Amino acid sequence: MLDQVVNLAAVTILGVLEQAYFSLKVIYARRKYSVSPPSTTGPPEFERVFRAQVNCSEYFPLFIVILWVTGVFFSQAAASFCGLLYLWARFMYFRGYSESAHGRLAPLYLSGKVLWVLIGLSALGVLNSMGQVYLRLDALQYLSGI
Amino acid sequence: MLDQVVNLAAVTILGVLEQAYFSLKVIYARRKYSVSPPSTTGPPEFERVFRAQVNCSEYFPLFIVILWVTGVFFSQAAASFCGLLYLWARFMYFRGYSESAHGRLAPLYLSGKVLWVLIGLSALGVLNSMGQVYLRLDALQYLSGI
Amino acid sequence: MLDQVVNLAAVTILGVLEQAYFSLKVIYARRKYSVSPPSTTGPPEFERVFRAQVNCSEYFPLFIVILWVTGVFFSQAAASFCGLLYLWARFMYFRGYSESAHGRLAPLYLSGKVLWVLIGLSALGVLNSMGQVYLRLDALQYLSGI
Ligand SMILES: N[C@@H](CCC(=O)N[C@@H](CS)C(=O)NCC(=O)O)C(=O)O
Ligand SMILES: N[C@@H](CCC(=O)N[C@@H](CS)C(=O)NCC(=O)O)C(=O)O
Ligand SMILES: N[C@@H](CCC(=O)N[C@@H](CS)C(=O)NCC(=O)O)C(=O)O
Repeated sequence: MLDQVVNLAAVTILGVLEQAYFSLKVIYARRKYSVSPPSTTGPPEFERVFRAQVNCSEYFPLFIVILWVTGVFFSQAAASFCGLLYLWARFMYFRGYSESAHGRLAPLYLSGKVLWVLIGLSALGVLNSMGQVYLRLDALQYLSGI
Repeated sequence: MLDQVVNLAAVTILGVLEQAYFSLKVIYARRKYSVSPPSTTGPPEFERVFRAQVNCSEYFPLFIVILWVTGVFFSQAAASFCGLLYLWARFMYFRGYSESAHGRLAPLYLSGKVLWVLIGLSALGVLNSMGQVYLRLDALQYLSGI
Repeated sequence: MLDQVVNLAAVTILGVLEQAYFSLKVIYARRKYSVSPPSTTGPPEFERVFRAQVNCSEYFPLFIVILWVTGVFFSQAAASFCGLLYLWARFMYFRGYSESAHGRLAPLYLSGKVLWVLIGLSALGVLNSMGQVYLRLDALQYLSGI
């Protein structure tokens, strides 16, 4: 049974590693620009790194949750592929935002699109399961039989 | 087996959609009040929208986690019902907070109460399961037999 | 089957309770130091409590996710033990940070170490499962047979 989620678990670990990396980057930036906690304001260079990490942290739970719902109710392969793409987009977002506020935009749009695809696929999978449970229909099976 | 969690998955997707909606609202507010990242300060109208989204994001992982533990260990129906109520309370919180700091209070109390109910039910369910596993007791079964 | 995750669920509930406790502490600090939402700045005493809760909230999803992946793919006992240690470290972090910025450091390092142990164990477990699924190997079984 674990084989049906093992790739999701691998993507999840990569996601945690990415967030850990972003946190370390903030810690280095705090040292470099002498912004001691609890302060969170400083030169724009610091604030961009700081906000990049905050923004990625904010979206991380949404990402993980929708990754797993898609992987379990729609397809593990599709979810894992989108998951890797999302993590890559977030990496580029962090790098871009660290350099300039404008640099965050292109990867942000990409990460947003991947998230919408995952939301769409998870909704398809869950609606199909609800159809099976409550109406004894199986639309995905039906479609794949055409 | 998926039928035992399909409603939790549906509530989860709704939760992700709600958070996505809050994020879009912050993006619109950033444009409307010209608050460019990485800045997070501006007129109170902006700051209330901004904080409303941050606050909901902070509680989102707590909500999802306790929703699923309740749904799996206590009852899917009870968890899903509380879940919908919570999402509705958070929607009202966001709307209320966007209008005035005071407007956030009533829905915040409601969302807090729902969260406590979920914590209580999940604890009941988990304690019962622990009783079954470690003491071979089944209190919930016993109670429903009275 | 639930017996294989019931301890993870118990640690999860404790984690949610801890975060709820931190939130209440921020609410009290807001009253004590008269920092009304949406403001988040005030005397350093307030800002330390505020940031302590934000920092713990940021790491909470990472913690929960890695706790469950470790518990499911490596060992429930090891994951639960590390989980309790992490929650304790975070409690000390919150207390330490509330008193002084320096007071947060020792428990932060501990919580970081526990998180790295969990990341390592979860990676071992997931790689082993991948080996079983894709290469039909079982390294953990092999090692325990030596
Ligand atoms: N958001 C964190 C990310 C990195 C982190 O976890 N930093 C540690 C060591 S400097 C910390 O205790 N930060 C204090 C804080 O978040 O207020 C930050 O702003 O510092
Ligand atoms: N918390 C976010 C919510 C909305 C969002 O994700 N915004 C995008 C596009 S403006 C972003 O990159 N925000 C930068 C940031 O969070 O610092 C914000 O404050 O902007
Ligand atoms: N991060 C929250 C933690 C506690 C909380 O949830 N507070 C409630 C009642 S004061 C709230 O609505 N906070 C407004 C906010 O987070 O902006 C805070 O800063 O207040």
